[in-house]
Order: sequence, then C-alpha cells, then structure tokens
Amino acid sequence: MRIEKLCLEAEVSCAWQPFLLGPIFEKRGWSSSPFVLDPEKGRYMWRDVEREAERLGLPFKRPALFPADSVLSARLALVGLDEPWGLPFAKAVFQAEFVFGQDIGLPATLYALLEDLGQDGPAIHEAALSPFWKPRLRAVTQTALARGIFGAPTFFVEDEVFWGNDRLEQAVAWAKAKKKAP
Amino acid sequence: MRIEKLCLEAEVSCAWQPFLLGPIFEKRGWSSSPFVLDPEKGRYMWRDVEREAERLGLPFKRPALFPADSVLSARLALVGLDEPWGLPFAKAVFQAEFVFGQDIGLPATLYALLEDLGQDGPAIHEAALSPFWKPRLRAVTQTALARGIFGAPTFFVEDEVFWGNDRLEQAVAWAKAKKKAP
Repeated sequence: MRIEKLCLEAEVSCAWQPFLLGPIFEKRGWSSSPFVLDPEKGRYMWRDVEREAERLGLPFKRPALFPADSVLSARLALVGLDEPWGLPFAKAVFQAEFVFGQDIGLPATLYALLEDLGQDGPAIHEAALSPFWKPRLRAVTQTALARGIFGAPTFFVEDEVFWGNDRLEQAVAWAKAKKKAP
Repeated sequence: MRIEKLCLEAEVSCAWQPFLLGPIFEKRGWSSSPFVLDPEKGRYMWRDVEREAERLGLPFKRPALFPADSVLSARLALVGLDEPWGLPFAKAVFQAEFVFGQDIGLPATLYALLEDLGQDGPAIHEAALSPFWKPRLRAVTQTALARGIFGAPTFFVEDEVFWGNDRLEQAVAWAKAKKKAP
C-alpha cells in the first residue's frame, strides 16, 4: 500500500514479483506460518501489525482465516504482472485478506476483484493454468528460494536485501542513493 | 545506546531488566540463536544490524564469537541494577561484544569493564554468586518467560509489548501517550 508513493517520491522504479511462501517455509521445516507455529510470537506479531497499520493510517483487520491459500491469487497476479490491472489486483488481494477478511483461496473472491478492475476472472484463471503460465509460479518461487528469501515482503536493490514493511524506507533510500552514485 | 536519550526527551522513565535468552530459545526447541540456526536469515540479520547501526550513527562490528555466553554478565548487571554503575556497565558489555569483539563470557573481560567504572570486579562477582543474588537471574528469566518474551530487546509499557530496536520509538511514544492520558 505504501511502496508506489515512496518510489515515486524517490524517483526509483519498483518491479513486483509474486511468489509462494509455502515452499520457503517448508525448506525450514515449518508446516505453517511462524505466526501460527509460535503462538506467543504470533500474538505479538498481530498486535504489532495492528499498531503499525494504525500508525501508518492503513486499514487493517486480522483475518479469521490465516494463513490463506495464496496459490491461485499468485497465479493470477503473475498473468497480470505486465498488464495495467496486475498491480491493482495484487493490492486488492491483500486488502481482501487483511482488511475485509475474505477468503482469497476461493476463485469467486478473486473473480470479483478482477471484475472490479474490468477483467474476466474465469478467462484469466484459464490462462493462468495454461502450459505457458502455470510453470512460472514454480520458477519464480525457485528463484526466491535461490536468492535466500525467507519472508515477505522482501525488497531487493541489486544484491542488497531488505525484509519487511519496516525496512521499506531504507530500501527506497538505498535505491535512490544507488541511482545517484551507481 | 538510544533508549536513555529518547526517554529523556519524552519525559518517561525506563527500568532495565537483564534476563537470559537461552531458556527462552530452549522453550522453542532452539539449540542456539535464530541467527545461527537459519544461516540465510542470519546472514540477512547481520547485514541489517550493520546497516541500521550505520544509519543511526552507532559503531558496530559483527563479533567473531556469537552467541556469547552472557550468564556472568547478566549476573553482574543484576547486582548493579540499582547502583550508579549498573546501566553504564550493561551498555559497556554490549559494546564489548558488538563493537570491540571481546569475549564477554570471560570474567577478565567483565572485570576490566567494571574497573573502568571504578568497581571491584571480583568482589561484585562474589556477591553475584551469593545466595541473595544468584537465584535472581533464574527468577527474572522465569518472569520473562511468563510474560511471553521471545527476544531482546523487549520493551513493556504496562501490558503493551514492543520488540526490537526498530520498535523503540513506538514504545517510547506509547509510554508518553499513556502518561498524558492514563
């Protein structure tokens, strides 16, 4: 919700890249989100997200269902990555989950979001499962694993890694400095 | 290194409390620091600490020995908690480890820090192992466990929990707001 404005102000660009966290957690032997596996840490994290959202003026409601099944939303977002609807769709998915408590694992939820953007959900779903698009999600997730990603959001400025909403300002500042003195 | 100035500016007080992370990690089934157990996350964390220290104008050097054995330093810090040398000693221990690469598990390292503060290291060591002080470290660590602490530094403002250097400003702001409207 914050990255576009910050990048615009800093005059740097940002390329979004959907991927799956599941295989990354699996590699660490985690059967679910760390928010779920460690209840004390999880309780803290949800409270922290709530406080930070309020501080940043962003709506937030802890979803009843967590973690959601994000495979289909990631597949659809990949199809849209170079389309005008791609980024608004990705943001709408996050809001559906973390503001409106919708189940983003359901095709109907995602079709409705796409329809709001003037897109044909079932047609995009079909494209996402085509031999051209379907293997892409595995490929980008393998790339994420290979780059040592362990959570989301992760921001790369060349090989410099920044993890989490609370490192977004630092990532953008780093990109801006790099651009000035490459 | 930052909390005293921030608390002073916000006109709130801060009570330091040493405790051991070891039993807290053990409870989670971790045999060492998460920085060590997950090499990819560990590599990121060290880089993040390095960058954040630079941003904040604080000296930092990644210690060759990590995690250090902090039991004795915690014992000595507990003895000093209500003494004028306690807080300077605690900060000196962190600097010894994270700036000067010293082994804070060695009595000689800690005696030298105490001597710099005009204190008698061996005498304080002896006091720390007395029946009055020795059980305190276990007690405060049990309290930390009971309060759901999972890392350090953790800041409490009544029951509101803030974890990590990057939540210090929020913790101090929360304390300030609480003070104004209790």
